[in-house]
Amino acid sequence: MREVAILGIGQVPVDEHWEKTLVDLAGEAVFQALNDAGREEVDALYVGNMLAGQVDKQTQLGALISDWVGMRGIEAMTVEAACGSGALALRTGLMAVGSGLMDSVLAVGLEKMTDVSSSETTAALATAASANWETVHGVTFVGLNALIMRRYMYEYGWQHADFAPFSINAHANGANNPSARFQRPITEKVYKNARMICDPINLMDASPMGDGAAAALLVPADALKKGGGRSLITVEGSAVATDSVAIHDRHDPLWLAAAEKSAREAYRQAGMGPEQMDLFEIHDAFSIMSALSLEACGFAERGQGPRLAQEGEIRPGGRIPITTMGGLKARGHPVGATGMYQIVEVVKQLRGEAGPAQIDGAKVGMAQNIGGSGATIVTHILKRR
Amino acid sequence: MREVAILGIGQVPVDEHWEKTLVDLAGEAVFQALNDAGREEVDALYVGNMLAGQVDKQTQLGALISDWVGMRGIEAMTVEAACGSGALALRTGLMAVGSGLMDSVLAVGLEKMTDVSSSETTAALATAASANWETVHGVTFVGLNALIMRRYMYEYGWQHADFAPFSINAHANGANNPSARFQRPITEKVYKNARMICDPINLMDASPMGDGAAAALLVPADALKKGGGRSLITVEGSAVATDSVAIHDRHDPLWLAAAEKSAREAYRQAGMGPEQMDLFEIHDAFSIMSALSLEACGFAERGQGPRLAQEGEIRPGGRIPITTMGGLKARGHPVGATGMYQIVEVVKQLRGEAGPAQIDGAKVGMAQNIGGSGATIVTHILKRR
Repeated sequence: MREVAILGIGQVPVDEHWEKTLVDLAGEAVFQALNDAGREEVDALYVGNMLAGQVDKQTQLGALISDWVGMRGIEAMTVEAACGSGALALRTGLMAVGSGLMDSVLAVGLEKMTDVSSSETTAALATAASANWETVHGVTFVGLNALIMRRYMYEYGWQHADFAPFSINAHANGANNPSARFQRPITEKVYKNARMICDPINLMDASPMGDGAAAALLVPADALKKGGGRSLITVEGSAVATDSVAIHDRHDPLWLAAAEKSAREAYRQAGMGPEQMDLFEIHDAFSIMSALSLEACGFAERGQGPRLAQEGEIRPGGRIPITTMGGLKARGHPVGATGMYQIVEVVKQLRGEAGPAQIDGAKVGMAQNIGGSGATIVTHILKRR
Repeated sequence: MREVAILGIGQVPVDEHWEKTLVDLAGEAVFQALNDAGREEVDALYVGNMLAGQVDKQTQLGALISDWVGMRGIEAMTVEAACGSGALALRTGLMAVGSGLMDSVLAVGLEKMTDVSSSETTAALATAASANWETVHGVTFVGLNALIMRRYMYEYGWQHADFAPFSINAHANGANNPSARFQRPITEKVYKNARMICDPINLMDASPMGDGAAAALLVPADALKKGGGRSLITVEGSAVATDSVAIHDRHDPLWLAAAEKSAREAYRQAGMGPEQMDLFEIHDAFSIMSALSLEACGFAERGQGPRLAQEGEIRPGGRIPITTMGGLKARGHPVGATGMYQIVEVVKQLRGEAGPAQIDGAKVGMAQNIGGSGATIVTHILKRR
């Protein structure tokens, strides 16, 4: 397979964009990425999206967006694995460019989820869980995560307050990201006193919904190596792994087997391990997910994710800085778009363009996007060459 | 890119499968394809589906199906472009195997659309059109096709009865396909007297909904060439093209620009033209679509699709046999699955396994899957080697 590089990136600040349509949002991210890359068109466009059919009553986003951005006719489609959809757009683009079929691809993550009532969005989000074994009983998606967190606290002896560093770190970092939905640090007191959503998950454990779009333009790396100039960012590892959709059916509900499998494969492809990662954009939809991801990807011992956080190792300057631009918690979680926001953020870090959020000397970055409560997990490793 | 072959196929008869779940249907098609290929597992599974989120309240089908068929852990995702989703599963599998990333992939088309009221399904299908410019006015999907058909009749001077040969041919061929939803020939009288749905589209112009799943197992062709034995079926051409989603915005609403573009690209890849095709599985969601596809792909002059049909050239033994196993009209149109049914049918024809529906000596076959009223069009050319 040909080596693939990310030449351009774009993102819309995550917010409640009631005045903008799906294509308005996608178009902004796409035009930014095209301008950033110095290109005017591409061979194909792949869109990661979860909810447009349900919430916006619109399928076929690929054709819709391609037309809107002036590229009517090009190959286009949507890819989906619930909240893991975004990174799948990059994954598909990688296959298209890597195979030699395409010489340039736009990978777009897009979601617009605040135009309907929050109960409608909650019901739509629940489709990420098993319809026949989980949601049939009325459980919501936050409810499933609460079950996991409660069991984790019981098994490993953690208290709710032990998870505070995840949220505090995310909000501290989000304050340095102009595209974040929340740009204000929080204190431990704010975390502890936050409104309970679904015990033990309180408002500060849960990432907020939002509307957003993010995009990356992929090209063969070879074409750029001659160029010189700007940093060359290459995709060194890319892997998707799956697990049971219903939590009760997993071998261990406290272990993200798909995260372990996809991270291990991405490490293998990149010829690197967790110790080489300078930062990790983690899928912190809920704080419990941060702990589980860190453990499955080899950054912490089983059951010891919160300890890594308490020791400050997840902060900028720590052993493995996570959610360096705010993560899902502070940047916001426009579900199908999130995976591409993570990619855009890693690219900004590796280019040294992260402003006050910059991780000094970042050369290798990892991003992990999770569908459902861990059923589809996509891991990417990017590197500055 | 590596050359890719189709080693195994499977399909569930299209029907109202109220007693079966999404994974039941997908599993049947997958196990058939695995058995047919003599394999027990694959590296990845891609699912073409349009409606599961809306109708079945289930996203993340890739992980769900992989687990169900005993391959928990493998890479999996859903691909979507409305009714053109099915063929995109094959397209994605082709990129994965062709790039060298995967050595075996299952491409699955899946749809379950009859478990809810038909008005709910009708609303869900309308998401294939433009939400902001078409469905906002209350028009249904059949309504949009009726507008196209009426205009076509006006521009080119055809009467409604002139479209009868499309429906009569499809039902005659469906009678020879045990997986078809309707296995009974119809007469011209039946066509003319059918109940009007949306003038000028009557019941015999429209393909029926249905539940179904179809699958194909892809591998590198090289590995098989040594083998001998069974016919080697290779993917010679594969192309996706797009157009405006809203019909009013097309340069010519009576010309499927995306069909022309994707067919031309597939012909180029295959080094062949329309005259080399032994059969053409066409996307006859409505009889007008058959005429438009034949014209855009070079089988008939502009405005002359119905003439080709009237001259008998679309029947078995004609110049370009279409809908050889019944097409969408008689086999049924489980929207997101349809593209994979077309592929399975072409493979059966090229292998000489089509039974009474067999096109004598078929060596090269084409399949075209359409999303919306022509906004995403996927063309594949398969060949027996």
